[in-house]
Amino acid sequence: MSDVLRMGYVHARVTDLARAKDHYANTLGLYPTLEEDGKLYFKGWDEWDHHSVVLEEGGVGAVKFGFKVMDTAGLERIEKKAQTFGDCTVTRMSAGENREVGDGIRVQLDCIGHTFEFYTDMTAVGLEVGTHNPDAFPRHLVGIGAPMLDHALLIGEDIDTAARFFMEVTDFYTTERAQTDLSDEAQTIAYWLSSMQKVHDIALLRGENGKLHHFAFQMRDWNDILHAADLFAMDDVPIDVGPTRHGITRGETIYFFDPAGNRNETFAGGYTSYRDRPTIIWTADQLAKGIFYHARELKESFTSVYT
Amino acid sequence: MSDVLRMGYVHARVTDLARAKDHYANTLGLYPTLEEDGKLYFKGWDEWDHHSVVLEEGGVGAVKFGFKVMDTAGLERIEKKAQTFGDCTVTRMSAGENREVGDGIRVQLDCIGHTFEFYTDMTAVGLEVGTHNPDAFPRHLVGIGAPMLDHALLIGEDIDTAARFFMEVTDFYTTERAQTDLSDEAQTIAYWLSSMQKVHDIALLRGENGKLHHFAFQMRDWNDILHAADLFAMDDVPIDVGPTRHGITRGETIYFFDPAGNRNETFAGGYTSYRDRPTIIWTADQLAKGIFYHARELKESFTSVYT
Amino acid sequence: MSDVLRMGYVHARVTDLARAKDHYANTLGLYPTLEEDGKLYFKGWDEWDHHSVVLEEGGVGAVKFGFKVMDTAGLERIEKKAQTFGDCTVTRMSAGENREVGDGIRVQLDCIGHTFEFYTDMTAVGLEVGTHNPDAFPRHLVGIGAPMLDHALLIGEDIDTAARFFMEVTDFYTTERAQTDLSDEAQTIAYWLSSMQKVHDIALLRGENGKLHHFAFQMRDWNDILHAADLFAMDDVPIDVGPTRHGITRGETIYFFDPAGNRNETFAGGYTSYRDRPTIIWTADQLAKGIFYHARELKESFTSVYT
Amino acid sequence: MSDVLRMGYVHARVTDLARAKDHYANTLGLYPTLEEDGKLYFKGWDEWDHHSVVLEEGGVGAVKFGFKVMDTAGLERIEKKAQTFGDCTVTRMSAGENREVGDGIRVQLDCIGHTFEFYTDMTAVGLEVGTHNPDAFPRHLVGIGAPMLDHALLIGEDIDTAARFFMEVTDFYTTERAQTDLSDEAQTIAYWLSSMQKVHDIALLRGENGKLHHFAFQMRDWNDILHAADLFAMDDVPIDVGPTRHGITRGETIYFFDPAGNRNETFAGGYTSYRDRPTIIWTADQLAKGIFYHARELKESFTSVYT
Repeated sequence: MSDVLRMGYVHARVTDLARAKDHYANTLGLYPTLEEDGKLYFKGWDEWDHHSVVLEEGGVGAVKFGFKVMDTAGLERIEKKAQTFGDCTVTRMSAGENREVGDGIRVQLDCIGHTFEFYTDMTAVGLEVGTHNPDAFPRHLVGIGAPMLDHALLIGEDIDTAARFFMEVTDFYTTERAQTDLSDEAQTIAYWLSSMQKVHDIALLRGENGKLHHFAFQMRDWNDILHAADLFAMDDVPIDVGPTRHGITRGETIYFFDPAGNRNETFAGGYTSYRDRPTIIWTADQLAKGIFYHARELKESFTSVYT
Repeated sequence: MSDVLRMGYVHARVTDLARAKDHYANTLGLYPTLEEDGKLYFKGWDEWDHHSVVLEEGGVGAVKFGFKVMDTAGLERIEKKAQTFGDCTVTRMSAGENREVGDGIRVQLDCIGHTFEFYTDMTAVGLEVGTHNPDAFPRHLVGIGAPMLDHALLIGEDIDTAARFFMEVTDFYTTERAQTDLSDEAQTIAYWLSSMQKVHDIALLRGENGKLHHFAFQMRDWNDILHAADLFAMDDVPIDVGPTRHGITRGETIYFFDPAGNRNETFAGGYTSYRDRPTIIWTADQLAKGIFYHARELKESFTSVYT
Repeated sequence: MSDVLRMGYVHARVTDLARAKDHYANTLGLYPTLEEDGKLYFKGWDEWDHHSVVLEEGGVGAVKFGFKVMDTAGLERIEKKAQTFGDCTVTRMSAGENREVGDGIRVQLDCIGHTFEFYTDMTAVGLEVGTHNPDAFPRHLVGIGAPMLDHALLIGEDIDTAARFFMEVTDFYTTERAQTDLSDEAQTIAYWLSSMQKVHDIALLRGENGKLHHFAFQMRDWNDILHAADLFAMDDVPIDVGPTRHGITRGETIYFFDPAGNRNETFAGGYTSYRDRPTIIWTADQLAKGIFYHARELKESFTSVYT
Repeated sequence: MSDVLRMGYVHARVTDLARAKDHYANTLGLYPTLEEDGKLYFKGWDEWDHHSVVLEEGGVGAVKFGFKVMDTAGLERIEKKAQTFGDCTVTRMSAGENREVGDGIRVQLDCIGHTFEFYTDMTAVGLEVGTHNPDAFPRHLVGIGAPMLDHALLIGEDIDTAARFFMEVTDFYTTERAQTDLSDEAQTIAYWLSSMQKVHDIALLRGENGKLHHFAFQMRDWNDILHAADLFAMDDVPIDVGPTRHGITRGETIYFFDPAGNRNETFAGGYTSYRDRPTIIWTADQLAKGIFYHARELKESFTSVYT
């Protein structure tokens, strides 16, 4: 079993903090929890930790990703396995290096050029609906009312090593995999990896090191996807693809861009996964259907625009 | 972390196998996988193990519940902790005692009068959509097309001990709890317990030992709940309550009865839970709203009809 | 064909204007357009005429119902046919007798003890989304965001005569009818009557003269019904029945009460009706299923609480 | 008011009857009612007349469209007004010229190169759910279960004259209109015309005479749109655009192609229109948003592929 609870935060760069704040707060409906030192911190209404999104001004793309670990013993297990794994730089990080985040470790995964932080403590600020006889959602949701961060899709050159890192070091498992064909020489094109029961906590796509494809917020269902798309039209948010369904993960989705050009996703549905569930294999000839189940063709921007 | 993957099967009694088969296969849309020795075995289309429901003729109510455990090490951990826990009888069970199920252990939890089996292996028969470039669901779903078993609500006298069993022995955690009030002397009325990220894998309600309140199938969303309710009307399935939403778990639901009188549930929605999520507390004065969020009153049958 | 466009307004009594305003404006999301002389006027965001709901303080129940007629020629046809019909008192009404409503006629239909006004002109105030390149709905909907008034169900003793009035004088047709049985001596229990293509503009149920069963607002779909039910729970609006489906009209529905005790409905779905569509007949033995398709039993309050 | 009840049938050409039958019957779920003389006849489950779709082998595109008129008096009114209108050829047609269709008139509208038939009688075969205590839909729907024909979008050179025909001769009214700009010299790009309360019974787009853009089936809601898109993926039906929402009409939609290449649409939602509703105006600069509310850009095929 994995010691990792979830991708606890995404830390990304944006070109303009004011426009970013408008997008993430007013359109996505995240709750701003702190604005300090040129950084914005947000949480979803159904999250209890201090933040799940950190934005800093200057460029685009991902700075790093935080994974919350259940306890110190788990953190130590991950640290030891990471050190043994090689192909990555493991350092300790101290409480306060990240605002409201406790001690932990930082892993630079050179094979894909991304940085991950593992931590056990973040200041708790509570669910927006409270914990005593709570309502089903806040009475006055803002924008699309995104409840929580869900996952991210990262780009990198050697995703095989990166996937092995997540499987061996953090005990993730592969829910779905896209590969060139079904032969023994097949190359993997992308991995969808899960810590516990979500269809994915992180996904990896072969490409340029250090690039971000998207990070995603979990929505309730297909109807909330429509509502989100309608508000994106009203708020002039550029939609990349959707509303549609993924064949891969079965999720119901919209891809869209924040004002800096980082791709976001609203993701609903999927299935409850289990570690003993058969791994789903997609082959290159059916990959377009796997990615966009309805159109069954890839939009050019989707496989070329990364930040 | 818990070694338990999920409630792998419910084994229940029904008064008439033929009528039960019609209900579970034609209305719920489960796939019959075996009929032998007066027992019916079913799986959902999104399950890969041989069965998740076993029905035997003769009376009503639950015979036992099976929990699938990740591996033998996990099974041994559970066995040891169960032996230490006391208040229960732990025995070994052998492959073949349950059709298609491997070796395991059987726990009689006397405090609530229920029997649980823990196992690591069940014959795999595969997802109905296959594992290579699968469709989002079977092209020809039957009835409401229930994809998989989700959870059960059991009745018993000493649910405090039982909850402690699931927390200490199987490492479940409490997602939500109903209690008489917020004082230090508050008595717990019901527990919702999760192994990993589901809002509940099992729930416990104070009452007569050995009784079954319901077992539930996971549905995709609120629209599938409507479709199920419509088909229950067409197939003359008695609906107890719903469609509605639970305050507790936020799930979208219908309670209904199989032809023997066992209560079933179709359950959708809820939220992705995490072990560090604050436990939600419901107090007796708001419990009706917690159970049926819209009506905010309990239907008499719901708290009196158990099998 | 009928000259009647729609039930343009419901004029009802409430016990407390302030609480009524909170309900109709903040929970239902109607737009207050005027408050004057102890009366409140509201319109839905998808309506363009000045108001569709008028509330006056003092008691409960319906004062009268307004039907908007296409043109003066149509109004004259209705006046003449009403005078010929008998069983009702027909008088002229002048612009200004009803705030923002033009000249028309008033019909007291003694057989059911209800008053109807027919008019061709009401001050137009416009759609909330405008008429040039409009958005799909207002960006900041309030409460459940009820778009428009849909229909009303009235109670009266001689609904046969009243139904004949609507068919002969206003050229409505019967979309569905509930009757004691299929024999030649069957008595009609209720009528659902349509002017054009809605499943009903008005419905009539046998009972005490002058009583109101409910008036209804049109919602988009089953998901908006859930959203409405959730907000009713949050705003402490008493739900009578629902969310559920009607067998009759197929509509998806919630019945609930305003603070004065008048029954409201949120209604979605149904079907596009046509004047040549076969009339649907419901018999008394299946009427519970016709009214509440899922529960298939009548709630006592539903057939006894009228205002 | 209009004497026209609805577009009663579309008569189109297909390249291969067997493949067409598979598409319209097995995927769309229409009921085949007759196969004779190289023609296929279909109806939806919620239609009562003998057919709403006629397909004949040989080419692609529309042969003609039938409009059902309420009664003989209405038919005579239309005949007289059409003869006065000019710009069209009006002939009588006899019962039997179209299978199961009674006497009527045929109008060749040269300004757009399309043929329309007006009739009062078609053999009734009944609703699939019957008329006594009917279920909400057939227990065993086939494919996407399209309930009924909704509307068509026709292409022609002089759509201004054609729109005037439908407004003056058949008393349709314009619900929405796309035009080059808001100036007095603005040219109309497209008309959406309604007989009664639907957002459109027919739409007209400027282009090559005699061409068909699409004909559409009415679906219940956004969720049925998703279900349709999923089945199109499974049945390998080429999707042109969607699922998405139209700004124009607000409808929820998928455009797709039948095996011959004729464009079909599944259409849900929209709004209940009324003859006094303000006409919605879309200007060329916002037309892409009007047509595809989410993407806000036109797909090339959508404005070039006609049959």
